[in-house]
Amino acid sequence: MKLALLQMQADLTTAEERLDALEAAMASAAAAGAGLLVAPELLLPGYNCPARHAAEAEPRGGPWEMAAADLARTHGVALVFGWAERDGEDVWNAATAIGPDGTVLAHYRKIQLFGEMERASFRAGDAPPPLFELGGRRFGLLICYDIEFPEHARGLARRGAQAILVPTANPAGYEHVQRLLVPARACENGAFVAYANYCGDDGGLAFGGGSVIAGPDGAVVAAAGTPPALIIAELPELGSYPAEAISAQLADLRLPDGA
Amino acid sequence: MKLALLQMQADLTTAEERLDALEAAMASAAAAGAGLLVAPELLLPGYNCPARHAAEAEPRGGPWEMAAADLARTHGVALVFGWAERDGEDVWNAATAIGPDGTVLAHYRKIQLFGEMERASFRAGDAPPPLFELGGRRFGLLICYDIEFPEHARGLARRGAQAILVPTANPAGYEHVQRLLVPARACENGAFVAYANYCGDDGGLAFGGGSVIAGPDGAVVAAAGTPPALIIAELPELGSYPAEAISAQLADLRLPDGA
Repeated sequence: MKLALLQMQADLTTAEERLDALEAAMASAAAAGAGLLVAPELLLPGYNCPARHAAEAEPRGGPWEMAAADLARTHGVALVFGWAERDGEDVWNAATAIGPDGTVLAHYRKIQLFGEMERASFRAGDAPPPLFELGGRRFGLLICYDIEFPEHARGLARRGAQAILVPTANPAGYEHVQRLLVPARACENGAFVAYANYCGDDGGLAFGGGSVIAGPDGAVVAAAGTPPALIIAELPELGSYPAEAISAQLADLRLPDGA
Repeated sequence: MKLALLQMQADLTTAEERLDALEAAMASAAAAGAGLLVAPELLLPGYNCPARHAAEAEPRGGPWEMAAADLARTHGVALVFGWAERDGEDVWNAATAIGPDGTVLAHYRKIQLFGEMERASFRAGDAPPPLFELGGRRFGLLICYDIEFPEHARGLARRGAQAILVPTANPAGYEHVQRLLVPARACENGAFVAYANYCGDDGGLAFGGGSVIAGPDGAVVAAAGTPPALIIAELPELGSYPAEAISAQLADLRLPDGA
């Protein structure tokens, strides 16, 4: 399967502009033969616009999910994207996976909210990150700060994740995440990790780009620099990696009492 | 505090040769003002000599521990080193921390034995990795493969470790450990990780060198290449690192049921 990451310019201001950018990327991904595209965190309505999160958040099954499902179906490409989800009084920092036929495959509410803005805007998720099957592979979902904690990726790997998809909004100055922690999560779990970030400035907050797909050997499968980018790469079969390239086999783990 | 790592040539064959090399390193470390030296895994009697592990293993309080304590006391430098420990019928892949006055500060038996040779030679440890205090800092001990699993470093960090010391014997071809996983463990736990390896060939097994001290920001504090080396570096105060350089603050971790 070919996987596409959309590294989107952060300063698109309306949900319509953002859906247009997503549609262009979906069309390009389809033309390149990608089976799945991962877009950044809070693609809708945007990341650094706290006043708009609660004001514009949509429910599950609402117009944003419908628009995303239409794009997936139109282009025959599965899609993972972040969005502000309203459920009654609660607003969540969510991500949804949609299959190429437009059906919802998985929904996730971010567990590890980052910083004061997110904690003021969103309620933290309290359900385990979900898994879904696509193209004969098992994928897991996390969002941004979640991947910095080894526990969440490990939990997905224990439940069989072969690739972990991570919409993110990682500011400039935090490049240790895409340079170091994303490849480490891949290597220590023998799984792919795909991290789709913004670039450019969004209302005074600069994003670092550097979207990356890391392989189970910790090496970069594909990565973007700091400009806007669509990166598309074939995910090799996990079995094609030599066993010694994959670290800390989960089956080997021993935990003494009290450790 | 200045920390020294001894990256030792692997092919020294007798325990006496190895103690001589350790003594020379301790003298240099003392002259350079180091307060603590970390030596590789199974410094005594050696790594790739399985027939000698059971044959030469010494008990706690035996001649190897006494010799190491003498070196620490003579040079006024604390010491962490790996050795084959016999306790009745059991042989362990152990590491001991000895204070500058020659007292034993901590003892550890490797939990994650790596590969068939180690599993045939040693019993796996079943006690949590230990902590000890030195120079106003709290240190933890792991050995080699242990550090590739996020769980063991995390357990030490939860128990207050500010620096994790790791005697290792990491073969050439596994450089993703020192390049990626050691810095990631440091970054995700907001702690230093020091990884002291062999270099050169030991009975047909080539070691990769690359001994490294990684900081809580994931950056390299000091590192060796592939030749024999003694690296000595000041460990900055943890508080001197900006908060945004340290990832995934442990206090932030949330684990939903079933995750």
